[in-house]
Amino acid sequence: MAGCLHLLPVQLGPADTATTHPPGVLTTLQRLDYFIVERAKTARADLRKLGHPAQLASLVIEELAAQPEKLDQAELDRLLAPILAGKDGGLMSEAGCPAVADPGALVVRRAHELGIQVVPHVGPSSLLLALMASGLNGQSFRFHGYLPIQTEARQRAIAEIEAESARRNQTELFIETPYRNLAMLDALLLHLKDSTRLCIASGLTTTEERITTRSVADWKRTRKQAGQPDLDRQPAIFLLLATTARGDKRR
Amino acid sequence: MAGCLHLLPVQLGPADTATTHPPGVLTTLQRLDYFIVERAKTARADLRKLGHPAQLASLVIEELAAQPEKLDQAELDRLLAPILAGKDGGLMSEAGCPAVADPGALVVRRAHELGIQVVPHVGPSSLLLALMASGLNGQSFRFHGYLPIQTEARQRAIAEIEAESARRNQTELFIETPYRNLAMLDALLLHLKDSTRLCIASGLTTTEERITTRSVADWKRTRKQAGQPDLDRQPAIFLLLATTARGDKRR
Repeated sequence: MAGCLHLLPVQLGPADTATTHPPGVLTTLQRLDYFIVERAKTARADLRKLGHPAQLASLVIEELAAQPEKLDQAELDRLLAPILAGKDGGLMSEAGCPAVADPGALVVRRAHELGIQVVPHVGPSSLLLALMASGLNGQSFRFHGYLPIQTEARQRAIAEIEAESARRNQTELFIETPYRNLAMLDALLLHLKDSTRLCIASGLTTTEERITTRSVADWKRTRKQAGQPDLDRQPAIFLLLATTARGDKRR
Repeated sequence: MAGCLHLLPVQLGPADTATTHPPGVLTTLQRLDYFIVERAKTARADLRKLGHPAQLASLVIEELAAQPEKLDQAELDRLLAPILAGKDGGLMSEAGCPAVADPGALVVRRAHELGIQVVPHVGPSSLLLALMASGLNGQSFRFHGYLPIQTEARQRAIAEIEAESARRNQTELFIETPYRNLAMLDALLLHLKDSTRLCIASGLTTTEERITTRSVADWKRTRKQAGQPDLDRQPAIFLLLATTARGDKRR
């Protein structure tokens, strides 16, 4: 009989595991000796932090290919073979929950096709924590991943996202690589309407956690008075909710 | 100085808190004596399960109005007044994470406006667990809440969602009230393309947890052979991912 594929969240940054992981999830992780991960080096450090008792060299840690979206079926079957043969295994990503805003979904998809039981575990997800804490609409939302980098394509994407948000009263979430956070904020304040609400959540679950929701007008005012927010090199989630045509008296 | 508004996930169903809550989150919950909740009765049962040590009658438990999306500012300010005055408080919903697929977001939004620090905590979210475990695209997804109930409106919604999923390679998530789950499955199998992948996740975190991802063609075949899946009266998440025009050789 096949083993289980355990989906194991890892930490988002420096934090006490007592605030990020249920003890039962750590117990599951600590009894596994087969892991499928994004990068073995980070995974070893995470396993250490999450209290894995084994000599790390004794664990089998398989890396997803450099381009996980191009994993072919033979490679997926190779990664899942020990689990299909009866061993329980763990899937982990670089931060947060595997297969959410992160590679790994193809492994889970193939596990379903092979009849392997998939067990998701509770743990930190920056998207979910940010959405919860934003005060924006949590009953209708969309996650985009990264927006385009090129200036005009990005401007177009921002305008489209804002229009869709207004049309559907839908919160729009996206991420940026940390060193481009301030450039993203500049672009957002340049192109969004003053009435749109923008939340930036950074350093979630760490002592640097900062979650700020303001209208674009207030973000501009605050930046004029207090300078750029402290976002550089911090993993951040951006969330916006445009005011609907009916709700926005300024239009 | 104002207190903090702690966003406290509660359980999704019968489960050991050791698998659903980090101990630090329970410690935070257990030291609070002011709670804003959907329904006081459920909240008291949840506080008991999550180990709150106080006589529950000694806690102040404020209910959101019957129509939380219509809370006016005076009512929000009344709910947040003790926190603004310096007391820490907790926000909880009926299941899972407050303000996600659930009311409570207006309380969080007003807390931001009043300068109250908002602290999201790690815990079970059926949406996130389902997305992680579905094997569908976790890098682009959208949550719709409930689809329309009326037959033609529902059919139109399903077709629109499937088309959008194909266009954007985007996972679409929605929920249904438990006693309508099988009717929802019927509608999905009637209107979706055979190649679309459909995941149904029910009983998450409980001993009844069941997460199944199949193509619509396979769902139909399995239903013909094995009858309706065991979904009646189970809280369930529905997720679908249509094949993109390029990826689907059947079109």
